[in-house]
Amino acid sequence: MKISARNQLDGRVVEVVKGATTAHVRVELAGGQVVTASITNEAADELQLAPGRAVKAVIKSSDVMIATE
Amino acid sequence: MKISARNQLDGRVVEVVKGATTAHVRVELAGGQVVTASITNEAADELQLAPGRAVKAVIKSSDVMIATE
Amino acid sequence: MKISARNQLDGRVVEVVKGATTAHVRVELAGGQVVTASITNEAADELQLAPGRAVKAVIKSSDVMIATE
Amino acid sequence: MKISARNQLDGRVVEVVKGATTAHVRVELAGGQVVTASITNEAADELQLAPGRAVKAVIKSSDVMIATE
Amino acid sequence: MKISARNQLDGRVVEVVKGATTAHVRVELAGGQVVTASITNEAADELQLAPGRAVKAVIKSSDVMIATE
Amino acid sequence: MKISARNQLDGRVVEVVKGATTAHVRVELAGGQVVTASITNEAADELQLAPGRAVKAVIKSSDVMIATE
Repeated sequence: MKISARNQLDGRVVEVVKGATTAHVRVELAGGQVVTASITNEAADELQLAPGRAVKAVIKSSDVMIATE
Repeated sequence: MKISARNQLDGRVVEVVKGATTAHVRVELAGGQVVTASITNEAADELQLAPGRAVKAVIKSSDVMIATE
Repeated sequence: MKISARNQLDGRVVEVVKGATTAHVRVELAGGQVVTASITNEAADELQLAPGRAVKAVIKSSDVMIATE
Repeated sequence: MKISARNQLDGRVVEVVKGATTAHVRVELAGGQVVTASITNEAADELQLAPGRAVKAVIKSSDVMIATE
Repeated sequence: MKISARNQLDGRVVEVVKGATTAHVRVELAGGQVVTASITNEAADELQLAPGRAVKAVIKSSDVMIATE
Repeated sequence: MKISARNQLDGRVVEVVKGATTAHVRVELAGGQVVTASITNEAADELQLAPGRAVKAVIKSSDVMIATE
């Protein structure tokens, strides 16, 4: 599958915390920065997300903001 | 200013392409991956975005998806 | 690639309209309803989107609202 | 009320699962595909969402991505 | 139509700027603050948006961030 | 920090309700309208959000829709 989302960042899961319906997944990118994703518990199960798993963090460019100091 | 968005990734602007109302800004993260942001031309002007500028790519965690091979 | 987004709707491209930086792609779903996606021109080119092409419309569940009459 | 969101897909609620603050609502579209929405419990109560209820799934076009095989 | 989005802010259009495919609509809220919406030109036409028109700015709660000084 | 998001509305926290992983924060804007934000519990803690606190509600313009009667 190829997807239109411009941002597909390579990384590795470092933590999966499940709530009642929503899971927070932390992914360490190549380069050491960490990205947090809020996804459904169902998706976390289906993709078998667990620490160490190689994944991509996928983000639509219209969801990225820019900040300056 | 501190913001609730979980993802504030350090990087450097590598390209700014303006359209009629929307600009596409490419930011190279520490670690070498590139993030594209679609923002208004107005915001790009106001933040004086240009290649070489140190910025953060800011993304709400509910806008991040996870993909696996 | 498998992705966490809960909504991956099968359909067929019926129209691609490019703007200066942003393209509007219309996809007719199985069942006849039409979904419009705003994506970058770059993504539309890369995926070679054109009328007739079988695609999925992918939507994160946190981006779906519900309306009633 | 008329809304600018380009995507207003007719369907019928098939499931409502409430979490601590967030509900997942599954809607079967005309044509048989199912869309999942993550909304607040409060909204699910206010709209009296329950299986069988006719609803629209409303999605802004900037939140739709396109994927190809 | 009732919609699940928690935020439906009353205001009045003060400006509509159309680009190639995307329009920027500025709405002054009761209270004087101004909200900018990026919507499709098509939606702006369909809703006959023009300065002075009473509208609601509709925003899903998962798209709102909080910032502190 | 300056951010590209066009909408940075001044207000004051009136309520913080935490769920398992997601908090709902209600902010009364200058002018009396109330905005609800769904953010992570972690962010709510980090920003020390509590009733009475002066904050900004920050919203990307591509996440704002317009509705008319």
